[in-house]
Amino acid sequence: MTIPDALAELSTLLGDRLSRSKSDLDLHGRSETHFAPTPPDAVAYPETTEEVQALARICARHGCPMVGWGAGTSLEGHGLAVRGGVVVDFARMNAVLEVNASDMDCRVQPGITREALNTELRATGLFFPVDPGANASLGGMAATRASGTTAVRYGTMRDNVLGMKVVLADGRVIRTGSRARKSSAGYDLTGLMVGSEGTLGLVTELTLRLYGQPEAISSAICAFPDMGSAVDAVIATIQMCVPMARIEFVDQATVEVFNAAAGADLPAAPHLMVEFHGSDASVAEDARRFGEIAGEFGATGFRWATLAEERNKLWKMRHDAYWSILQSRPGATAIVTDICVPLSKLAEAVEETRADIAGSFIPGPILGHVGDGNFHAILMARRDSAEEMDEAKRLSGRLADRALRLGGTVTGEHGIGMGKLGYMEREHGAGWSVMGDIKRALDPQDLMNPGKLVPPA
Amino acid sequence: MTIPDALAELSTLLGDRLSRSKSDLDLHGRSETHFAPTPPDAVAYPETTEEVQALARICARHGCPMVGWGAGTSLEGHGLAVRGGVVVDFARMNAVLEVNASDMDCRVQPGITREALNTELRATGLFFPVDPGANASLGGMAATRASGTTAVRYGTMRDNVLGMKVVLADGRVIRTGSRARKSSAGYDLTGLMVGSEGTLGLVTELTLRLYGQPEAISSAICAFPDMGSAVDAVIATIQMCVPMARIEFVDQATVEVFNAAAGADLPAAPHLMVEFHGSDASVAEDARRFGEIAGEFGATGFRWATLAEERNKLWKMRHDAYWSILQSRPGATAIVTDICVPLSKLAEAVEETRADIAGSFIPGPILGHVGDGNFHAILMARRDSAEEMDEAKRLSGRLADRALRLGGTVTGEHGIGMGKLGYMEREHGAGWSVMGDIKRALDPQDLMNPGKLVPPA
Repeated sequence: MTIPDALAELSTLLGDRLSRSKSDLDLHGRSETHFAPTPPDAVAYPETTEEVQALARICARHGCPMVGWGAGTSLEGHGLAVRGGVVVDFARMNAVLEVNASDMDCRVQPGITREALNTELRATGLFFPVDPGANASLGGMAATRASGTTAVRYGTMRDNVLGMKVVLADGRVIRTGSRARKSSAGYDLTGLMVGSEGTLGLVTELTLRLYGQPEAISSAICAFPDMGSAVDAVIATIQMCVPMARIEFVDQATVEVFNAAAGADLPAAPHLMVEFHGSDASVAEDARRFGEIAGEFGATGFRWATLAEERNKLWKMRHDAYWSILQSRPGATAIVTDICVPLSKLAEAVEETRADIAGSFIPGPILGHVGDGNFHAILMARRDSAEEMDEAKRLSGRLADRALRLGGTVTGEHGIGMGKLGYMEREHGAGWSVMGDIKRALDPQDLMNPGKLVPPA
Repeated sequence: MTIPDALAELSTLLGDRLSRSKSDLDLHGRSETHFAPTPPDAVAYPETTEEVQALARICARHGCPMVGWGAGTSLEGHGLAVRGGVVVDFARMNAVLEVNASDMDCRVQPGITREALNTELRATGLFFPVDPGANASLGGMAATRASGTTAVRYGTMRDNVLGMKVVLADGRVIRTGSRARKSSAGYDLTGLMVGSEGTLGLVTELTLRLYGQPEAISSAICAFPDMGSAVDAVIATIQMCVPMARIEFVDQATVEVFNAAAGADLPAAPHLMVEFHGSDASVAEDARRFGEIAGEFGATGFRWATLAEERNKLWKMRHDAYWSILQSRPGATAIVTDICVPLSKLAEAVEETRADIAGSFIPGPILGHVGDGNFHAILMARRDSAEEMDEAKRLSGRLADRALRLGGTVTGEHGIGMGKLGYMEREHGAGWSVMGDIKRALDPQDLMNPGKLVPPA
């Protein structure tokens, strides 16, 4: 009962789709942020649910950890095999299995990325709206309960996964949910699996809610005299019920990165980026109302983008922000924060964070999905400087404290992974022990992504 | 370690708020539908979370079942203490604890009813939209994952409970969720508790999402030449993205009951009842578009209600439908069905059900929240006729089969309770055993509403 025994059997099961090459192990041992590389013992590339089930049974028999892998874009090291074992890469399970246009849903395999899915959906007039920025896999997005720029309008993965097929630690395969839009038939296992970060099972299929491609889309960016005015404009816009599809805050430091990295020529000031979806008439009306509200808070320099090309350029800049920011400080690694607070506390949370970072010796541009009360400070520390790493962690800890003090959460959309485990007890109290109870009930050997999310055994 | 030992200690804890009067036991031993009366051993009326916690500890020590009770409006006998023990009636925990107008949320105790909550909210400009018809308690609505007429616009209890305080079987008190609008911090315990029917814990507080009271509301009822046209009109309206707040189907038999019971003078035909929420302009535009679409499917006899009084009359008739239908057949009891299917299968499901009932010897008016794919047949059998009861159960079973064959669920909003337990294995397969695993992990003695929802131990 050892990992090598498991690998021997897995090799028989999967042939050359069980890889032990150094390059593969290295590729699946790294993360997008500051966590130390942790190569697994092997990487499996299953092609069917049945193979994943067989894999789980072999791993269960030999006590071998199993860690799901999508596109590797997690910011909290979710895919790191910290206790060794096999990383299960869903790259070969990336098909769209079924599109039900009249019910506006589809069934996909977990390895498909959101961009590939939307490319396949283009001709149907439908799209999948959840947009975390990175071209993440749908399985990974479900595992981390991802959201991003469009959650203010379309919700998060919690709202948009209707059902799943999941292989459990003991090899049971379950189907959760149904294609009905609602159900009261027992515990919401879909909701339990979404956000469980691979600790309860390996997802092999997802049924997703789709939406009609909007008839008209209009995007804009505008500058504000200061951070507080921008945040207050967001709150006023939400309270006036202007239906935004996106409303993003970027601070002056982020704008300076945009200017340098993407050749933008934006004024050095905090900005909001917005988008409206609807009919030609409704989009024009929404844009007019937003312009009026923003104007009251001092917004200037509106740039509107209605053509697809202009819009894509605008949002590409936003989506690349993490990478552009990171590259703006050579040699730095990122500690990414992700707090989410009630909207009434957002101005306070952003302002305190700004002051904290202003008083620090490391940079930390701030940007976020402010319509949800969610924002990120990208704290950049030189990896070889213990002093800078400590400072980034100190600031990150203060952000977490702030979120909890203000009635919010330490992670709005990135998940726990390696980086936020230390805050779970404070956020959830006894609720964290309940998560541990559920984990032990479904995975008593602690083989599904061990070392993540629940209290240490 | 017996129930009497528990009751002795509970009596010391609660004084005369532990009732053993025959009238109280009878009142808490009955249900709204056909289930046999099952009086509990006692009824407790706690006033604080701390008392519920003390109660749970006493019950756990003595192996005494605990069954939560709200307004007693469940249609599936959720509150029946089928293994004896204590019914925990939340009548004295019915306060609004906090309203955060700027965040559009509130914190309430579980015993408050939805009408009482909306009365308290009136002056704030906000409202809680979930409307199952009956004046249910919010705790009960959360327990059954209730929805009703407005789910097509505002979602179900799954979408509108942001957090909870829950007393577990072992006396642990947990807070789930936060006041942030989204979170990726671990398992979604709020989502797990919503719909768990009191089998995992006793909810003592709920944080709810609120909405702005619409500036304008417009309701209407119109007739269709046949059931299929009405259902097709609903599907077309949804696909054209007309934003409806309510869209309800009532068949000819229901309309005849409306005419007799509520003094309506509607033509003997299937009808749709609709409502639009928004600005004056948007409501007028939505109503115009709906009128156009419905007209294409043969709708006639539109009656619009824009004044509050007219609207209230219309929806009171709909909300009273269950009682009016039941009273239309003296001596009958109801077996209420509640299937929910993908919208593309709705016409087929309704038409097959209609044909089934037409070929039967008991009546079964059909009505439902068709915008969600959810509808009810109220199967009326004389309680003293074994033949009629068997026939009702046969029809109900065929409805369940139909739902599952069409990719749906046996219960869209009423829950499992006593009535749908027999379908759980077929709907969920191995997923039902996972529900059992979770139940055992959190309630190993099976004391929280035993005999419901999960597989028998």
